[in-house]
Amino acid sequence: MTVQFHTFIPPVRTLMGPGPSDVDPRILNALSRPTLGHLDPAFIQLMDEVKQLLQYAFQTQNQLTMPVSAPGSAGMEAVFVNLLEPGDKVIVCQNGVFGGRMQQNVERCGATAIMVQDTWGKPTDINKLEDALKANPDAKAVAFVHAETSTGVRNDAQALCALAKQYNCLTIVDAVTSLGGIELDVDGWQIDAIYSGTQKCLSCVPGLSPVSFSQQAVEVIKGRKTKVQSWFLDMELVMGYWGQGGKRAYHHTAPVNSLYALHEALRILHNEGLQSAWQRHADMHLALKAGLENIGLEFVVEEAYRLPQLNMVSIPQGIDDAKVRDQLLNEFGLEIGAGLGELAGKVWRIGLMGYGCNKKNVDYCVSALTSVLKR
Amino acid sequence: MTVQFHTFIPPVRTLMGPGPSDVDPRILNALSRPTLGHLDPAFIQLMDEVKQLLQYAFQTQNQLTMPVSAPGSAGMEAVFVNLLEPGDKVIVCQNGVFGGRMQQNVERCGATAIMVQDTWGKPTDINKLEDALKANPDAKAVAFVHAETSTGVRNDAQALCALAKQYNCLTIVDAVTSLGGIELDVDGWQIDAIYSGTQKCLSCVPGLSPVSFSQQAVEVIKGRKTKVQSWFLDMELVMGYWGQGGKRAYHHTAPVNSLYALHEALRILHNEGLQSAWQRHADMHLALKAGLENIGLEFVVEEAYRLPQLNMVSIPQGIDDAKVRDQLLNEFGLEIGAGLGELAGKVWRIGLMGYGCNKKNVDYCVSALTSVLKR
Repeated sequence: MTVQFHTFIPPVRTLMGPGPSDVDPRILNALSRPTLGHLDPAFIQLMDEVKQLLQYAFQTQNQLTMPVSAPGSAGMEAVFVNLLEPGDKVIVCQNGVFGGRMQQNVERCGATAIMVQDTWGKPTDINKLEDALKANPDAKAVAFVHAETSTGVRNDAQALCALAKQYNCLTIVDAVTSLGGIELDVDGWQIDAIYSGTQKCLSCVPGLSPVSFSQQAVEVIKGRKTKVQSWFLDMELVMGYWGQGGKRAYHHTAPVNSLYALHEALRILHNEGLQSAWQRHADMHLALKAGLENIGLEFVVEEAYRLPQLNMVSIPQGIDDAKVRDQLLNEFGLEIGAGLGELAGKVWRIGLMGYGCNKKNVDYCVSALTSVLKR
Repeated sequence: MTVQFHTFIPPVRTLMGPGPSDVDPRILNALSRPTLGHLDPAFIQLMDEVKQLLQYAFQTQNQLTMPVSAPGSAGMEAVFVNLLEPGDKVIVCQNGVFGGRMQQNVERCGATAIMVQDTWGKPTDINKLEDALKANPDAKAVAFVHAETSTGVRNDAQALCALAKQYNCLTIVDAVTSLGGIELDVDGWQIDAIYSGTQKCLSCVPGLSPVSFSQQAVEVIKGRKTKVQSWFLDMELVMGYWGQGGKRAYHHTAPVNSLYALHEALRILHNEGLQSAWQRHADMHLALKAGLENIGLEFVVEEAYRLPQLNMVSIPQGIDDAKVRDQLLNEFGLEIGAGLGELAGKVWRIGLMGYGCNKKNVDYCVSALTSVLKR
């Protein structure tokens, strides 16, 4: 092999896409500290703190709260493979890409997904969910996405969960983009299983997926008739390592350094306080909105259910999507997101997440778009 | 929440257990560089280099060569869930913990594992494998562990694969602890599917699992009658993102910073050269062996199939296993490994892996053990 490989120095970027978001330098610093063994007493103590901090971030007392050692997609899979068995029926509300991914997961568990479809860019219609619940009294769970990253829509998690509970269903929530950015109350809203990602409003590096399971969900897992199809994601095995108090048994080698980073990210969120973080996202969203509307860009999602951390705007007529994004990236080092799925080529998605959700980024984004769009 | 959380500063350690191994500071430095978007052109270029470097490390031309975005256990699962379908039969050779994990994976795919058992601490007996192949002409694959981390035994991967091929079986190899530490030749030895880890002889942080699939394995995947049970690990979907040349489609958010680290780790291996790295592991093992035998410690595994990177010694009579390991950790900052499974309490496992495989560590380990054992 005669090729020479050089150390990789990433170009300077401002990440305002759908995630990863700009990572706080304090988190990058924590990430790079020397690796410990995954059974080192000092590391076990860190794991305990990560768990407590996640309970704070999720607003839950759930004992089964921890980060899955892989990205959000694996967190999603962890929830479905542990709760479902072949033959189960799950009502999945879809109004974007990630509801569709839930369907894939349900079906690959040998279960049936009853789909409640809404237009991409609109929230889930609670009346449609109620119709589906009435038509499927044997449904085991209701699953939906809290913050649809593909559209910038907030679904009303509190109301959807309350309804699902009236019909004795487990509630499964995708909080990949919501955690740390908008109100989320796992215990107050009766969420039975939830998963998130580290690379959105926590501003941590991508690669981990915080999850939490209610006591009712834990009992469902314990009462399974079949083995969980994934050994790696089997929560009963994982908890032998992440379990509280007693002996820690080796299951897999934890991603030690990524957990240093998550600890630091959660510590930063804890220091700021959840309410303050949510308010900051709301405030910066308003500032971005004012700036974008001022240059004629229109939001797709109605204000009532618009996500502050993921701003979807229509691409103006006659504007070349890819060319604009290339110019932003190459001339300004600014990454914004393309449309996903059926919205490809029609919209841009501008993220304001965690550490990257600040006035400097808002101003820079508006000024860069102003410059590029007037050419 | 009134608890105060402080930034985590890990204690100083020398990692000479079964992994993670000491991470080269150059790799920690690469890890902490600013995060890029997972579709950034500069990042895509890094991914291409990671793939080329993995092809070098594995000694393969396999196009389907890439790191799974999760630890070695997930790499193992990726191999089995993609290659197996319900009803398939796989011959699994077990002579330690990780052969047993293979069995779990096979069975959770709805397939049958025909177990070829050998004593822990001994290599797989090729005659037993041949008997199993003769008795099971419908076996689809033979699976075994190249370097058994739980015992320090090297199985003869070349011979086992050659035999499996005579019986038209796919060959599946666990190379978690072998990659970069001892000879491994994926193409030369006719290995169809292989997985490894980053935290052993690559001396990278834990959290990724390099995998490689031969053309024959790819055809098996393409010819599946059923969907892969894991969405996250479905290679056809993953390859839409990792695929060469054409358009990269979003599948999941790659663990960007961990990939910076893996790139740097592989670059370091490439600069040293595979043969030099293997020789260094062999040389340091001999130095460690001389030191340990000098203080009366005995190796469990016979020299002919002993791993240089994982040294299993018997705990002398009358010595308190946990107390010694605690003293090494607390007084010397030195981590060595306990026995796993049926060997718990009977052995220590001393790792000499990658960056940590050097004369300084050898001397420190021998001197610390000397000090603690003579008390």
